[in-house]
Amino acid sequence: MPRIKLTIEYDGTNYVGWQMQPNGISIQHQVENAILRLSGSELRVHSSGRTDAGVHAGGMVCHFDIDRALPMSAWREGLNRFLPEDIVIRLAEEVAENFHARFSATGKWYRYTIFRSDVRSPLLSRNSWLVRQELDIDKMRQAASGLLGEHDFAAFRTSGCAAKTTCREIYSLDLLEEGPLLYVDVKGSGFLKNMVRMMVGTLVDVGRNKRPVADIQAMLATDIQALPAFTAPARGLCLMEVWY
Amino acid sequence: MPRIKLTIEYDGTNYVGWQMQPNGISIQHQVENAILRLSGSELRVHSSGRTDAGVHAGGMVCHFDIDRALPMSAWREGLNRFLPEDIVIRLAEEVAENFHARFSATGKWYRYTIFRSDVRSPLLSRNSWLVRQELDIDKMRQAASGLLGEHDFAAFRTSGCAAKTTCREIYSLDLLEEGPLLYVDVKGSGFLKNMVRMMVGTLVDVGRNKRPVADIQAMLATDIQALPAFTAPARGLCLMEVWY
Repeated sequence: MPRIKLTIEYDGTNYVGWQMQPNGISIQHQVENAILRLSGSELRVHSSGRTDAGVHAGGMVCHFDIDRALPMSAWREGLNRFLPEDIVIRLAEEVAENFHARFSATGKWYRYTIFRSDVRSPLLSRNSWLVRQELDIDKMRQAASGLLGEHDFAAFRTSGCAAKTTCREIYSLDLLEEGPLLYVDVKGSGFLKNMVRMMVGTLVDVGRNKRPVADIQAMLATDIQALPAFTAPARGLCLMEVWY
Repeated sequence: MPRIKLTIEYDGTNYVGWQMQPNGISIQHQVENAILRLSGSELRVHSSGRTDAGVHAGGMVCHFDIDRALPMSAWREGLNRFLPEDIVIRLAEEVAENFHARFSATGKWYRYTIFRSDVRSPLLSRNSWLVRQELDIDKMRQAASGLLGEHDFAAFRTSGCAAKTTCREIYSLDLLEEGPLLYVDVKGSGFLKNMVRMMVGTLVDVGRNKRPVADIQAMLATDIQALPAFTAPARGLCLMEVWY
């Protein structure tokens, strides 16, 4: 039975997140519903991971097996006809039967967008976090460098996190300024629940002098959070790419 | 009585345009309503012009006179409290009594965003026009250069346009490529109804080989539209700035 890999872009504003939830519509539901309407098959897709309510994606990945031969372009165009305007299949590919969207992933790239201004922006508000205070970018870069490499990130996960181990590796963490926008690009082996948002919240707290750079070392050394990490809002976060 | 100038940003997706209309809510209505709720005064604001349904603005300008002394920062913060998330006052300034948002304007800058791709993008769709065909940028630049300067733009206005004269001056018209995005930046003395969208539609038709570069000269020489200008969708257009 052919295995199909989908690369999906979405605006998460109107959803409860990737995964099915009792309290609203999920992106996963919309994708599975599109597959049902196109192919007649009721099935589950397997994703590279989850995204929270309000988080966006440029390149979420999922896979499924289906006993229906269609050209890959027909899968993409067909599913897109049944998807709402805020979700789209960017790519449909046939993959080997040992490919798994979650277990084959070797890394992920998340981008967090901060909008530095004293006035909110209607044109940016769906995809960024408005920070009104002055940010010390040098201090934020110092703090960011402390997060690089392999660490126990237990202090950077939320209580609902079900991961067995809390060790992860951060490959790179870059702060890119573009006018009033500040992008935080985080690339790593994998991420705990809310990990990127807690890392960004902590970096911003360092940047606005709410906590010292040294807190990063202290937080990585222990899972007891003296001053818990601040969680940056979901709307600023976007899963850009998953690597295999 | 003090005269106040407001610089306004908005996402036009959910509105019938700047101006009051019988068929839905306008941005002007939301601004006047915020003034009413903040100051108790029911008044009309005078804008630099109109924007169509679905068109956005980074810097729309309007003015009004009011017999209420408040610091300018209080006007801005106060009005923003009564405005929905998709409209914001970026700046409130006291101006001379001979200032007029429309008649004092010396020029405007519009930006049109084209997204070149074979798949639609949920993260860009509110603010761009998806063009699936290959575009010949060199040909578009040739055609654009023909629009520069003073011309009779009668062929680039829609039937509902009430302007007395159809002569306008285009100061500059630049095509900027940024990955899959193509920005068309148009700066000029003033614009007829739908003029920018019809200029962009015509340039794109040239770029996708639907009409020759020479059509531009023919259209400017006559107001009889042998092949009427194609009107690019509203969602790609943004009024960036008004100059005084």
